[in-house]
Amino acid sequence: MADSPNCDLKSLSPLQLFERVTEQGEKVRALKAGKAPKDEIDAAVRMLLSLKLSYKTTTGQDYQAGLPPKDLVLINNGTTKEEDEDLVDPWNVQTSNAKGVDYDKLIVRFGSSKIDTDLINRIERATGQKPHHFLRRGIFFSHRDMDQVLDAYENKKPFYLYTGRGPSSQAMHVGHLIPFMFTKWLQEVFDVPLVIQLTDDEKYLWKDMTIEKAYEYARENAKDIIACGFDVNKTFIFSDLDYLGTSAGFYKNIVKVQKHVTFNQVKGIFGFTDSDCIGKISFPAIQAAPSFSSSFPQIFNGKENIQCLIPCAIDQDPYFRMTRDVAPRIGQPKPALLHSVFFPALQGAQTKMSASDPNSSIFLTDTPKQIKTKINKHAFSGGRDTIEEHRKYGGNCDVDVSFMYLTFFLEDDDRLEQLKQAYTSGELLTGELKKVLIETMQPLVAAHQERRKQVTDEIVKQFMTPRKLAFEF
Amino acid sequence: MADSPNCDLKSLSPLQLFERVTEQGEKVRALKAGKAPKDEIDAAVRMLLSLKLSYKTTTGQDYQAGLPPKDLVLINNGTTKEEDEDLVDPWNVQTSNAKGVDYDKLIVRFGSSKIDTDLINRIERATGQKPHHFLRRGIFFSHRDMDQVLDAYENKKPFYLYTGRGPSSQAMHVGHLIPFMFTKWLQEVFDVPLVIQLTDDEKYLWKDMTIEKAYEYARENAKDIIACGFDVNKTFIFSDLDYLGTSAGFYKNIVKVQKHVTFNQVKGIFGFTDSDCIGKISFPAIQAAPSFSSSFPQIFNGKENIQCLIPCAIDQDPYFRMTRDVAPRIGQPKPALLHSVFFPALQGAQTKMSASDPNSSIFLTDTPKQIKTKINKHAFSGGRDTIEEHRKYGGNCDVDVSFMYLTFFLEDDDRLEQLKQAYTSGELLTGELKKVLIETMQPLVAAHQERRKQVTDEIVKQFMTPRKLAFEF
Repeated sequence: MADSPNCDLKSLSPLQLFERVTEQGEKVRALKAGKAPKDEIDAAVRMLLSLKLSYKTTTGQDYQAGLPPKDLVLINNGTTKEEDEDLVDPWNVQTSNAKGVDYDKLIVRFGSSKIDTDLINRIERATGQKPHHFLRRGIFFSHRDMDQVLDAYENKKPFYLYTGRGPSSQAMHVGHLIPFMFTKWLQEVFDVPLVIQLTDDEKYLWKDMTIEKAYEYARENAKDIIACGFDVNKTFIFSDLDYLGTSAGFYKNIVKVQKHVTFNQVKGIFGFTDSDCIGKISFPAIQAAPSFSSSFPQIFNGKENIQCLIPCAIDQDPYFRMTRDVAPRIGQPKPALLHSVFFPALQGAQTKMSASDPNSSIFLTDTPKQIKTKINKHAFSGGRDTIEEHRKYGGNCDVDVSFMYLTFFLEDDDRLEQLKQAYTSGELLTGELKKVLIETMQPLVAAHQERRKQVTDEIVKQFMTPRKLAFEF
Repeated sequence: MADSPNCDLKSLSPLQLFERVTEQGEKVRALKAGKAPKDEIDAAVRMLLSLKLSYKTTTGQDYQAGLPPKDLVLINNGTTKEEDEDLVDPWNVQTSNAKGVDYDKLIVRFGSSKIDTDLINRIERATGQKPHHFLRRGIFFSHRDMDQVLDAYENKKPFYLYTGRGPSSQAMHVGHLIPFMFTKWLQEVFDVPLVIQLTDDEKYLWKDMTIEKAYEYARENAKDIIACGFDVNKTFIFSDLDYLGTSAGFYKNIVKVQKHVTFNQVKGIFGFTDSDCIGKISFPAIQAAPSFSSSFPQIFNGKENIQCLIPCAIDQDPYFRMTRDVAPRIGQPKPALLHSVFFPALQGAQTKMSASDPNSSIFLTDTPKQIKTKINKHAFSGGRDTIEEHRKYGGNCDVDVSFMYLTFFLEDDDRLEQLKQAYTSGELLTGELKKVLIETMQPLVAAHQERRKQVTDEIVKQFMTPRKLAFEF
């Protein structure tokens, strides 16, 4: 193995590569110290150089002894200026480009695969359903091992869905619905069980918040999630603070992951420092563990090794890269992933929406009037400065937030294409485009509010009770 | 507060002192940078020097910026040679002194209090019982806040006992019984509930062991613990791997502790490094959490803030110093502690007994013949090289392991004193002293084995089921 470093280097994670370089460096030193024959030393040095090159190719960084790779993604958007770099990790998404993060570069950097037409067609064949517009429009744009999930599915091998949310506040915005809307569709077309993790423990650890408050937010958020229309017979929603004390299987998987991940690794992946609390440092294992079916013995009848598929925004990928690194070492299958783009703030695609800035988002609690005002006042426009210029040169859909929102929420492909052409040609003015968005969002949010009202505490309790779902395993 | 650093410095932990010095250093730098008046700078510098002195007095180390105090106890045994230092932490106990660790220095270093005659007399008055020979003979020699426990007890305020064991193997040795024998006595004379933690998760994290094996050892060890004679109506024994998945209260306390302890702190206290797995790094919180009654809602009827008293060997103190640092910050009372000395290996008091070396210990599974052979062959003797010299100069009880063992297991004070005088005067030969030990240990171990045989799986299950105990809270 160690003698043919290039055969399998492409499959190695940056961290594994880092460890290979370190090992090889030690081997070279040992050979030199032991005064080994010159040709043996030369061969070892050649391999070291080759490993270092692979490391640089994969990470874009030079190998530095003792400094594991930072998976914080600093993508250079084609310029050499530092301020043009994209920052993407579970807590930050920042880019200086008005079109948003460069997702093609993110795919290369993260080592995931693009969701291409072939894959979308295959999903259509496997499910017999028209692909969701999030797939058709590249909103879910990247994946890991989705083809393996489909292989297994076509051979009648079951899988389950896992997604989640960090309940940082009572108020969710429309962007928070994206993974849940898509997951609901996946659950329907594949007819598979679904687990939804509410990381109230994470929010307690990261925020200035009591445990009780975090748990309360988790239950409130559960209502919004349930209002997306999940089937109670096929869905288990859990708060970590609750479920960890109800399932020995879950804790066993957590401690297994915790045994196989070092502080060096989470430092590299999540940027933790020595001043971080030990709760943060060990938390990634808690987000990893639901990727393994043995965390849910009540659902899977104690069966292990059932494939997991995780739909999530791409900023959550670091958790699951870590999970996929650990999985084979604890005898579990790697979870597969479907990644979405970020949902832009009203002010522009430079940042993700934030639940803490009420004007950055349309909230699920907003009135029709608030929605109208926010869109009219805050939605960044790709239109021209004057009507004359707009008529002459047309608007820019690539940076226009109203148009971006419509790609998420307007299901009619033909209508969306018409709007795009009319706006680009200058025929449609910014105010008119905003009106279409307002008329799309107002009934969507109102309908959500109506459904949420139906979600009683009793229904929340049903979803959050560990139990058998309507599947046989 | 910050202006009178000396008023409360004695109550600060080394880590808190370290943080005070660091803060003061920053203040001085800020004053100098801001060109503050000379007298203001001078006053700040004087305070900095005073804080540094307190730090040195407490820790025995010079303050070094960025290097938090190492609580690994390196005690200099009165000489200046490095090889004469005692090393005491939860995983290592080493001294080069045949008499064993210098416990008086350990008390100063750890900042605990000596269990003196006054305290022992007070325990006798409070309980109306003759103090256990472990107290009378200084085997439990150090404490934290035991007087507060007695204050509360005398005012009819309840407390509970918490002790534990890391189930590293199936075989326990007689040294492992010390905390349990003493805890049983405490439970009886105070009539209080008791929780016993089996840290199978810790052993899984630290050793090359499967989760299943660690859990199996926990159950096997529980049988030996139960065989000490605990009352099932007053005792709850739990495996972490089991109980964490049964009690939301326990996990909530764990995550609270994890939020209030940084990696820097556990690095200082336990010597963890960046290469340690995140499971080890966060584990101290799991040993801390049973110090809080809300971890056991079934026992305490959901009542919080019930005082906890922890009898344990002194090497476990770092966990509970950390716990006591955190307790007030999460609104919980600090646990009180009673510390025992280490149980010496047959080969001498330089090290703690080890379950991995069968000849270092008398195991609870040993036959009478094995006990006889081990003592005769391996018990380090404080006798002289020849019978003539021994008769003339006498033996040395301070280093004689057979005599040390008798202080643990021979309850008759008069008999022990006779043996001491006879051995010291040379009247009693090493072989004769060993014979007394053999005759003490053989029936003791045989009786334990007999009681252990009675411990069925059903009884283990009763002890390990979370339930209400025979107390009202």
